Amino acid sequence: MSQSSQPRPTKVTPLSGFPEYLPEQRVVEQHFLDVIRSTFELHGFPSIETRAVEPVERLLGKGGDADKEIYAVSRLAADLEAGGDAELGLHFDLTVPFARYVVEHAGRLSFPFRRHQIQKVWRGERPQEGRFREFTQCDIDVVDVGELAPHFEAEMPLVMAEIFAQLPLPPMVIQVNNRKIPEGFYAGLGIEDVAGTLRVVDKLDKIGPEAVTELLTGQGLRAEQAEQVLRLASIRTEDTSFVERVRALGVEHPVLDEGLAALAAVIDTGMTNAPGALVADLKIARGLDYYTGTVYETQLIGYEEWGSFCSGGRYDSLASDGRTTYPGVGISIGLSRLLALLFAKDLVRATRKTPAAVLVAVIDEDSRPVSVRVATSLRGRGIACEVAPSAAKFGKQIRYAERRGIPFVWFPGAGEGGDQVKDIRSGEQVDAQAGSWQCPAEDLRPRVVRTT
Amino acid sequence: MSQSSQPRPTKVTPLSGFPEYLPEQRVVEQHFLDVIRSTFELHGFPSIETRAVEPVERLLGKGGDADKEIYAVSRLAADLEAGGDAELGLHFDLTVPFARYVVEHAGRLSFPFRRHQIQKVWRGERPQEGRFREFTQCDIDVVDVGELAPHFEAEMPLVMAEIFAQLPLPPMVIQVNNRKIPEGFYAGLGIEDVAGTLRVVDKLDKIGPEAVTELLTGQGLRAEQAEQVLRLASIRTEDTSFVERVRALGVEHPVLDEGLAALAAVIDTGMTNAPGALVADLKIARGLDYYTGTVYETQLIGYEEWGSFCSGGRYDSLASDGRTTYPGVGISIGLSRLLALLFAKDLVRATRKTPAAVLVAVIDEDSRPVSVRVATSLRGRGIACEVAPSAAKFGKQIRYAERRGIPFVWFPGAGEGGDQVKDIRSGEQVDAQAGSWQCPAEDLRPRVVRTT
Repeated sequence: MSQSSQPRPTKVTPLSGFPEYLPEQRVVEQHFLDVIRSTFELHGFPSIETRAVEPVERLLGKGGDADKEIYAVSRLAADLEAGGDAELGLHFDLTVPFARYVVEHAGRLSFPFRRHQIQKVWRGERPQEGRFREFTQCDIDVVDVGELAPHFEAEMPLVMAEIFAQLPLPPMVIQVNNRKIPEGFYAGLGIEDVAGTLRVVDKLDKIGPEAVTELLTGQGLRAEQAEQVLRLASIRTEDTSFVERVRALGVEHPVLDEGLAALAAVIDTGMTNAPGALVADLKIARGLDYYTGTVYETQLIGYEEWGSFCSGGRYDSLASDGRTTYPGVGISIGLSRLLALLFAKDLVRATRKTPAAVLVAVIDEDSRPVSVRVATSLRGRGIACEVAPSAAKFGKQIRYAERRGIPFVWFPGAGEGGDQVKDIRSGEQVDAQAGSWQCPAEDLRPRVVRTT
Repeated sequence: MSQSSQPRPTKVTPLSGFPEYLPEQRVVEQHFLDVIRSTFELHGFPSIETRAVEPVERLLGKGGDADKEIYAVSRLAADLEAGGDAELGLHFDLTVPFARYVVEHAGRLSFPFRRHQIQKVWRGERPQEGRFREFTQCDIDVVDVGELAPHFEAEMPLVMAEIFAQLPLPPMVIQVNNRKIPEGFYAGLGIEDVAGTLRVVDKLDKIGPEAVTELLTGQGLRAEQAEQVLRLASIRTEDTSFVERVRALGVEHPVLDEGLAALAAVIDTGMTNAPGALVADLKIARGLDYYTGTVYETQLIGYEEWGSFCSGGRYDSLASDGRTTYPGVGISIGLSRLLALLFAKDLVRATRKTPAAVLVAVIDEDSRPVSVRVATSLRGRGIACEVAPSAAKFGKQIRYAERRGIPFVWFPGAGEGGDQVKDIRSGEQVDAQAGSWQCPAEDLRPRVVRTT
């Protein structure tokens, strides 16, 4: 409850970059969140949440331009005499706070530590389509002490593939690469600026191969080096045949061998457990310096220009307290961006905008307790319902249900032996008892369906 | 995923007032959240969320000292040339943003509009025991256009009583009053400063009747007026007999009559639908000026000094756009404060700290795919599980499960006809098939139980 003394008729204007859903859109979001959470749990990832704020010094310097995107937080009436609080900022992802959480609570966690984390994050950037200032991320990570077993790199994308398969989405494909492949390949070619070359190749989808060649030679690569770099980047296979195709390019380096073996293991596991969900795509780099092994990006087929909705990778050092280093691997769904696409293209809808499956009609205000008893009985058996807000004419009570998509209206005492319930979509009205009536399973809760 | 380039071994210090849970505590919080949400849904309250920020001018001036408690939010690298963004602050409750949401989206909502809202809120106040700078609130409200039917005032506390009855809590009692009772009573006594008198009576539990009498006479009340005020405040009944007891005081006023009838209706509905959950307590005022009818506070029996964990009331004007006024009634659970008490007094615990019910052992790394297939099969039937992180000796794999409270370890190929599963609590090990083994219902998910 607020403490507003007098509500002022203040002008109300939406804030750009802060999406806010109507109840029927929130039903869609909650369905996605429920599927994501329950799948994370089936795979043994417990939930944690971290506080919304971190010291600004912890946020700064992590991630290129991130310092431009941080929202600083300060008490409006800061107590100057008290010396001031630490400078705080809203977290801009869930990995930086998770790294801090691991170090802070290491003594009370069991390693390897798996967790899922579903929270809002904030970035103070200029909004554009599909980009938000407040948005929800859904992360899983596994982190260990000192060493992390490589099989976790194969496990992560399979969890996500299982989620996508349950959601009313166009087909998605998770593109996987291993940073050691381009790194070893470039080293084998005698290219010195590996990071600079990766950054240019990362632009391939946006600017095309000719512009990439131009940039690479501008960076000092010889024409045949640039050509080989592009040949590697063009390799994309649904099975492990990428290994042969890389070998056919004739470049050799021990780091390349490591990368090929690691990626082959991930793709192999994918083919066994989620056929068609993963593809080896050797141009995927993830622009970030700190990934050291497998990297993931995800395309929604037919909507490739919207970019990746699910990304991540392996890092040798998620966190460190100076003595201990924590390597990890993680992957994250950008839920708000995904929903923005689905809502913009009208690809999904909720079957109704309220959890209530039944509206219990009220004959007159004096008999409201009778209607409340019916509702209590239905709820006792897991059937969500509302009692009509007023004892209006039945036509008006039915329209109340219609406007909210509530499929059934219950009429106490309408039948000869007791009550009746009407399916207001078909108009069918039958005798029913609150203690035994079966709500059709497909009407029990709002469902989320594809519109096409 | 973050964009941290090199994790620095930064010092990690907890931030006072920002609670952060270990996985086993988060299991408790999630159980509470699940019960709260599902009960809200059974009662037909759809979910909405509002953005974390509001314009500071909307937050300011709402709620007494609230302006001292607002966290302002601003881009760390604000673009001065662009003229700057609107000044924003983090919401300090869910009612102010809900009021704004109703006005902003009124054209696309159906009234009376019910909603539940479960989100974090932030207050920049100095932390003390049970008070937080970041905490979770769980609200329900019903809001209508112009007029709001009084029966909603009886409905709100029953939803909360249903929630408390499902949670592993000490007994709770919801104390209900109607602001019209003291207001009418004071007016009938000839007291002019009704609000000032209410504010003093609100301190009764803290400072006692003698100090209240002193303050009241200091405000100009005659001794017999102060005496009557205290007599009214002392009335507390579990049924509607409070009406007679007020009548016996001999004060008459039409507003008092309205209040008594309204409160009697709420208590009457409570006695029918949730016997023992509500009590009429005529000293409950809720310090806030804007409540105009029923008010609620909630005590945890045996922990009364912790204050109210669930409060709310009726307001004639939740929001207004200048033309239309939206009356409403709402009630809110202060979940973080409730959990702080439960954790501090060690009143509840989770049966384990991971969703996994089974750890599938790995014989050797080459046979990991066999263990993954077992896990996939178990998950397909809703049994959460993990595959062991390494093919260590079985003793070590069992200890991995033990440390996390995972009750079962699965051994592929251990039996003559196939696999075996071991209950590591009893040591019992039996033949089992991943496609048909039944996980005991009480072990399927972590449960939350009272420790006492």
